[in-house]
Amino acid sequence: MVDIATRVYNHKWKIDPIVRSLIDTDFYKLLMCQSVFRNKPDTEVTFSLINRSKDIRLAELIDEDVLRQQLDHIRSLSLTRGESTWLRGNTFYGKRQMFRPDFMEWFENLRLPPYELEKKDGQYELTFRGKWPEVMLWEIPALAVLMELRGRAVLAQMKRFELEVLYARAMAKLWEKIERLQKIEGLKIADFGTRRRHSFLWQDWCVQAMLEGLGDSFTGTSNCLIAMRRDLEAVGTNAHELPMVYSALADTDEDLRRAPYRVLEDWQEEHEGNLLIILPDTYGTKGFLQNAPDWLATWTGIRIDSGDPAEGAETAIAWWESRGEDPRKKLVIFSDGLDEQKIEELHARFVGRVRVSFGWGTLLTNDFRGLVPDDALAPFSLVCKATSADGRPTVKLSDNPRKAMGPAEEIDRYKRVFGVGQQQSMDVFV
Amino acid sequence: MVDIATRVYNHKWKIDPIVRSLIDTDFYKLLMCQSVFRNKPDTEVTFSLINRSKDIRLAELIDEDVLRQQLDHIRSLSLTRGESTWLRGNTFYGKRQMFRPDFMEWFENLRLPPYELEKKDGQYELTFRGKWPEVMLWEIPALAVLMELRGRAVLAQMKRFELEVLYARAMAKLWEKIERLQKIEGLKIADFGTRRRHSFLWQDWCVQAMLEGLGDSFTGTSNCLIAMRRDLEAVGTNAHELPMVYSALADTDEDLRRAPYRVLEDWQEEHEGNLLIILPDTYGTKGFLQNAPDWLATWTGIRIDSGDPAEGAETAIAWWESRGEDPRKKLVIFSDGLDEQKIEELHARFVGRVRVSFGWGTLLTNDFRGLVPDDALAPFSLVCKATSADGRPTVKLSDNPRKAMGPAEEIDRYKRVFGVGQQQSMDVFV
Repeated sequence: MVDIATRVYNHKWKIDPIVRSLIDTDFYKLLMCQSVFRNKPDTEVTFSLINRSKDIRLAELIDEDVLRQQLDHIRSLSLTRGESTWLRGNTFYGKRQMFRPDFMEWFENLRLPPYELEKKDGQYELTFRGKWPEVMLWEIPALAVLMELRGRAVLAQMKRFELEVLYARAMAKLWEKIERLQKIEGLKIADFGTRRRHSFLWQDWCVQAMLEGLGDSFTGTSNCLIAMRRDLEAVGTNAHELPMVYSALADTDEDLRRAPYRVLEDWQEEHEGNLLIILPDTYGTKGFLQNAPDWLATWTGIRIDSGDPAEGAETAIAWWESRGEDPRKKLVIFSDGLDEQKIEELHARFVGRVRVSFGWGTLLTNDFRGLVPDDALAPFSLVCKATSADGRPTVKLSDNPRKAMGPAEEIDRYKRVFGVGQQQSMDVFV
Repeated sequence: MVDIATRVYNHKWKIDPIVRSLIDTDFYKLLMCQSVFRNKPDTEVTFSLINRSKDIRLAELIDEDVLRQQLDHIRSLSLTRGESTWLRGNTFYGKRQMFRPDFMEWFENLRLPPYELEKKDGQYELTFRGKWPEVMLWEIPALAVLMELRGRAVLAQMKRFELEVLYARAMAKLWEKIERLQKIEGLKIADFGTRRRHSFLWQDWCVQAMLEGLGDSFTGTSNCLIAMRRDLEAVGTNAHELPMVYSALADTDEDLRRAPYRVLEDWQEEHEGNLLIILPDTYGTKGFLQNAPDWLATWTGIRIDSGDPAEGAETAIAWWESRGEDPRKKLVIFSDGLDEQKIEELHARFVGRVRVSFGWGTLLTNDFRGLVPDDALAPFSLVCKATSADGRPTVKLSDNPRKAMGPAEEIDRYKRVFGVGQQQSMDVFV
């Protein structure tokens, strides 16, 4: 039987929307948003799209009207009653009412602010300006839209069985990874792949496949909508934008030096347990830990998001030991550029020494490498970052100079303030 | 939207029928059936299931009740109006009204005759007895049911995403073969995979993938139902059962010697063009061609279905030359145990020397080798053959002694009558 009503309904859509919900975003965005809403509600920020993969000429691949339609559709979204109920009623990280009533009321009335879109040198300049808690929520949907539209441009050229075989190959490829991961005793791994996913439906498939294939080893997804629909844990903590904006707002070098810790002081007032995860690499992990106040060593764990991950974890272990903490009780979350081999290696190296955990991103939800000619569906390095706060530029150094951003003179100043010397350069694929 | 009606309707089925149409069978069965209906309508035959793969213990894998339900369902089928219209109205091999009105009237009233089912030594003994034109139509559905039920027993143990990945891998595997075949200039290939297919839906998928992937190089399917639904050519000519039964009916050695040619005399009265295809191997290709009457050399082509296929084709070419025929005008159809590599080799060797064509069977529609543990879904060598006619045993020698069948003393007699000496033994996988 043909379901005529469904067919007619589907053809009524003017576009096929990529992002259909305000909670089709990373959980940590909402956590950070609540924190910003409380601590810096009036800070004016600019977020900008940055395509680190210059050879992917997005403005030539993606039609501007189509992009505008998708972005406009996102601006039409508001929190649904069911989504609000889920956020208000759910237990996150063992805590009821993680989201406070004042924040929820604000979120229920939120529409995303306008965007600015221009073409330049074959790339899109996509900029969001406004109050920090509003603008920050553009990051994930903007990235997901651009990544999926680039994919759609390639898929549009393919025939029906080519498409079916493409997804068959992608499924088989992911399942082979899952079969390898099944062999890792005590693995803990979550989906962190929303922002650079191939598509929403594909991410949803990947999450379900991980759930069936890995069982309790699969600890959840960062995507709130998928967590809600699939009855999974929504996971994630905090990101670089907090220290970047706090630092940009600092008036003096001394303020700047203290800014990354001030972020965590504010965080600590709201959170506990597995949400007390340090993200140390914004201005260099080594210096950050050396100069950290003692209370930070009592936090639950650390997230390693740039540089050589094994080195980052060793640095953290040495630091905990130097502060009299037992590393075996600490959580280390690896989340940068993971594939199944790196997961195996890192797990083997650190299991027993710390509590190991993985946040698997792009190569979980978008490993279409090698599946079409010219690798036209391979993921690439697209980010959307806070570039200024109250008119001052932000800076990121990271543990990999290729991930650094900000004006050159400001980078030099930050390096001086945070005592960052020579860094090891690593390729950035995703 | 959930299509409630479809869901309720699907749950009303008592079983999930494997064969749902009397034309879910090979086209050549219907052609041969019409010929038998005309020439030997009252011959009493026995068809028996023979599992050449003794290690596949079908009676332990397949529940007897389930098997009976499927066979009973087939006995409930009759030709639908649409199927009859398609058979009556269609052009097959360029000929209108291929099926005569008297045959169609008989077919429209046909229900398949009873079956006898017993278990013995872990195998099923499945036997069909009755008039040849009725009993012969059991062969293909009986094989398809057993092959699919064995698969279902394995699939029943698998979880949802395991299943999805299984089919993803099977799709990717077939598509890789298709991509190799795309490189063969001038390829002509058809689906002959009904009898040992993984399942009906999978065969249907394979046919559509071949159509998209190979375009005009894909010349059709032997499956009438799929040909009808997908608007494709139904293809096929004749099979061993004709010479086997004609030979069993022969009263003297001289009659026996002439029987295989009598089959083709009868065939020639009804058919022309691409339907005049010799199947020479029933009692040894060499002797059959040497002793053939001259008119047979004027036929359109030959089908190579056992033994070393290159040797069979060389034998045919030498024979045509010896009879003053130009092999370049002759059609050679390879149909035995093909995979993509053998297809490449045979095409490369014979292109330009003859008109080359392929009937691709089991490894098109059931190559699940290596996709589950213990290779529990690999195809195996199951046949359903005429074993007696009017109370006399049938005999098949073929060009491979492992495909021989019949009582030992009769095999010896046939070898003497047809002058068959030492034969080269080849493994039979499918």
